[in-house]
Amino acid sequence: MDYSLSVKKLLSREKISIGDRVQIEKGKNSFEGIVMPNTGDPDVLVVKLNNGYNVGLEIGDIKIKKMPPLKRPAARKFKYEYDKSKKNILILHTGGTIASKIDYETGGVITAIEPEDLIAAIPELMKIANIHTELVFQMWSEDMEADHWILLAKKIAQEHERFDGIIITHGTDTIHYTSAALSFMLQNIRKPVILIGSQRSSDRGSSDAAMNLLCAAHFIVNADFSGVALCMHASMDDDDCYVHDGLHVRKMHTSRRDAFRSIDVMPIAKVSRTGSVEFMTKYAEHGKFKGSASAGVDYKRKGEFKSLPVFNKKVALVRMRPGFSYKELEFYEKSGYHGIVLEGTGLGQAPINSIDKYTRHHALLLSAIKRMSKSCIVVMTSQCIYGKVNLNVYSTGRKLLDAGVIPVQMTPEAAFVKLGWVLGHTKNIESAKNLMQMNLIGEQVERIDPRAF
Amino acid sequence: MDYSLSVKKLLSREKISIGDRVQIEKGKNSFEGIVMPNTGDPDVLVVKLNNGYNVGLEIGDIKIKKMPPLKRPAARKFKYEYDKSKKNILILHTGGTIASKIDYETGGVITAIEPEDLIAAIPELMKIANIHTELVFQMWSEDMEADHWILLAKKIAQEHERFDGIIITHGTDTIHYTSAALSFMLQNIRKPVILIGSQRSSDRGSSDAAMNLLCAAHFIVNADFSGVALCMHASMDDDDCYVHDGLHVRKMHTSRRDAFRSIDVMPIAKVSRTGSVEFMTKYAEHGKFKGSASAGVDYKRKGEFKSLPVFNKKVALVRMRPGFSYKELEFYEKSGYHGIVLEGTGLGQAPINSIDKYTRHHALLLSAIKRMSKSCIVVMTSQCIYGKVNLNVYSTGRKLLDAGVIPVQMTPEAAFVKLGWVLGHTKNIESAKNLMQMNLIGEQVERIDPRAF
Repeated sequence: MDYSLSVKKLLSREKISIGDRVQIEKGKNSFEGIVMPNTGDPDVLVVKLNNGYNVGLEIGDIKIKKMPPLKRPAARKFKYEYDKSKKNILILHTGGTIASKIDYETGGVITAIEPEDLIAAIPELMKIANIHTELVFQMWSEDMEADHWILLAKKIAQEHERFDGIIITHGTDTIHYTSAALSFMLQNIRKPVILIGSQRSSDRGSSDAAMNLLCAAHFIVNADFSGVALCMHASMDDDDCYVHDGLHVRKMHTSRRDAFRSIDVMPIAKVSRTGSVEFMTKYAEHGKFKGSASAGVDYKRKGEFKSLPVFNKKVALVRMRPGFSYKELEFYEKSGYHGIVLEGTGLGQAPINSIDKYTRHHALLLSAIKRMSKSCIVVMTSQCIYGKVNLNVYSTGRKLLDAGVIPVQMTPEAAFVKLGWVLGHTKNIESAKNLMQMNLIGEQVERIDPRAF
Repeated sequence: MDYSLSVKKLLSREKISIGDRVQIEKGKNSFEGIVMPNTGDPDVLVVKLNNGYNVGLEIGDIKIKKMPPLKRPAARKFKYEYDKSKKNILILHTGGTIASKIDYETGGVITAIEPEDLIAAIPELMKIANIHTELVFQMWSEDMEADHWILLAKKIAQEHERFDGIIITHGTDTIHYTSAALSFMLQNIRKPVILIGSQRSSDRGSSDAAMNLLCAAHFIVNADFSGVALCMHASMDDDDCYVHDGLHVRKMHTSRRDAFRSIDVMPIAKVSRTGSVEFMTKYAEHGKFKGSASAGVDYKRKGEFKSLPVFNKKVALVRMRPGFSYKELEFYEKSGYHGIVLEGTGLGQAPINSIDKYTRHHALLLSAIKRMSKSCIVVMTSQCIYGKVNLNVYSTGRKLLDAGVIPVQMTPEAAFVKLGWVLGHTKNIESAKNLMQMNLIGEQVERIDPRAF
């Protein structure tokens, strides 16, 4: 999209280009900002104000003049002072909004990948721990493949003993797929591995990057926890973060800072930006960690650490819907897939009953599922997102069970990751089915917490 | 799954079969119930108690004996008395849990499809209105096809003038797809068309069927509303229902009675089981109804009623994920689909950037989308469910826009239904793209209500 001729004329008359700093007078008001590219109505001039918000202006009643660019504050240089009384945190950057730009204090844009930059941007961080950083990838998370999960897991397996905890900065789009993958690949890891992202960074004064990072660092230093988790805003306020189990979390909103929700379980803990940690789950609710029922239980895993970085990429995630055709499923059979996670309707249903002339093809879906279940793992989750899958309640579900479908108590994302990981270990269909039915590391929610909906 | 040999032996010794009524003594307690099929641990006997709940019993410490079956209460006969001072409601049954069995008052199981049965089961109903019923389908909603939406829309178009409102009983799995379809197919309908379902009917004493039906009837009689909406439990309590806009609602939990949530907007109204109606939205928030900003606005549509029961079934709903292959998308091209709704990650992204050796195939997805957009409509929604789609924020989104992808502010389900409906009217690619971009009947959420997350 482009600006209209009248907007272009106004800009050209004042020798203003996109990206220039301008002063605008509108009535009695005067304000400054940066001219942005057009994103909607071509007659409306978009200006990013100093507070980070964009404003759209009808050009009829404004006065505009070009201003010199603001001087970018020089990155404050820090002498990296190692404090041996403090814990050591390794930050692995993988890209995404949070790693590319952190907008904090100065309101400017700082590329904060080097430790010095990061500490310059978030001075509180060095008070919490010694910070070591490394750039692993520089990518948007929508492009992450299982190969990247494997590389990341290997890196963590190799490095984690030297540090008290690891923070991974990551794009938010698929961060919950990565957290599930690392949970399976780094079993019984003795250190906290905390993924963080940011929903708004360079385009808002109200960036969530800094607080997510600070809370993750506080959690590593102050809490007795090990395992893979996600630390993100607990609400739209800048007070607390939730630490979500890496296996039971999902991005539930496209833009809010508190977009991430624990699914069917409560978050593990709440961490304030000042560093206090409140554990929110106990063994019985979480079905995963051993410990007493009081808050602040021993979250340390008991088993031996195992690095298991494998994944079979011939797995798919396929959603049921009205009109779903057996041919859509057969595509995966013909393409040699080894596993398919279905997102069923409701308790885990699919259109498999032929009851009239419009549903004749449903019988073909049932027979396709039955046939495919012999050479491929077909797993059932629910597109409802929340609540248990149960194939025993209705006849449709029982037919699916008979056809060989395996119900799991997991988000579709975690089920997809588990299936690829299981099929990375074995292509033996019976072994893989057994592993999918088991609750290996607490990935299956045994008791739903009603507060988590 | 089957019971273990020891459970089978116990049952056979007492001549008890699955489905028999039994009395059980365990310690000092004694209770009665029905022996159910095994659904989990083969050593645990499952018994459905009189209150509807299932209990699992270790057989070691119980005494069990067979009891005669309870007499099913005879359906109370009502003389159907037409009260001309009351409004007239047509109930169209399509099947699902709610229509097959309504478990109310007696605790028994009553097939409540005939008006007499329904009124016998829910006597309050006849105090609210004259009830007329008709069985349209008898099916689980997971089997519903667009053909059924069309038949239902035609039926409503034909009947609605004779009644003050229509209630549709429907399975809950795909009820929100049907409510979206009827919203497009019955534009500016002058009567309330309220879909209801039930999450638990015959297997729980705490059935939600009766209250959902009562609230729908109250809403039709007491509220000045017309259009297509969904009436379901507002919470786990039996006090209120929400009336959700048929276009902006989704089943978000597999089993809870309050499983349905309005997405990105507030529900239209709250209705108590005693009949009071509280409108919760106003024009500015809802972006749809004309009227004043006060509660109880005029919800009547202004335009002319149009019956538009068409649907092009060559549309699909395809989810993006790590590892998504361009071949999965090309399947739809090769199979002659006319429209595809993508469920993108985050703001509406897809893995289209080739940045390293693992992501080489991403470029092929981008070119597939670009090529397919010329002969097929490719629409973008978000798998986050909540929040706006925005392809302008990141470079990935802008590439998708350039490739011809159309972002919409709708749930994936409503977008899928709209796309099939639009392509039922026209196969002209430009007309269809225009219609998808427009906000025809308030299906696109223009302003997200932050309370709705």
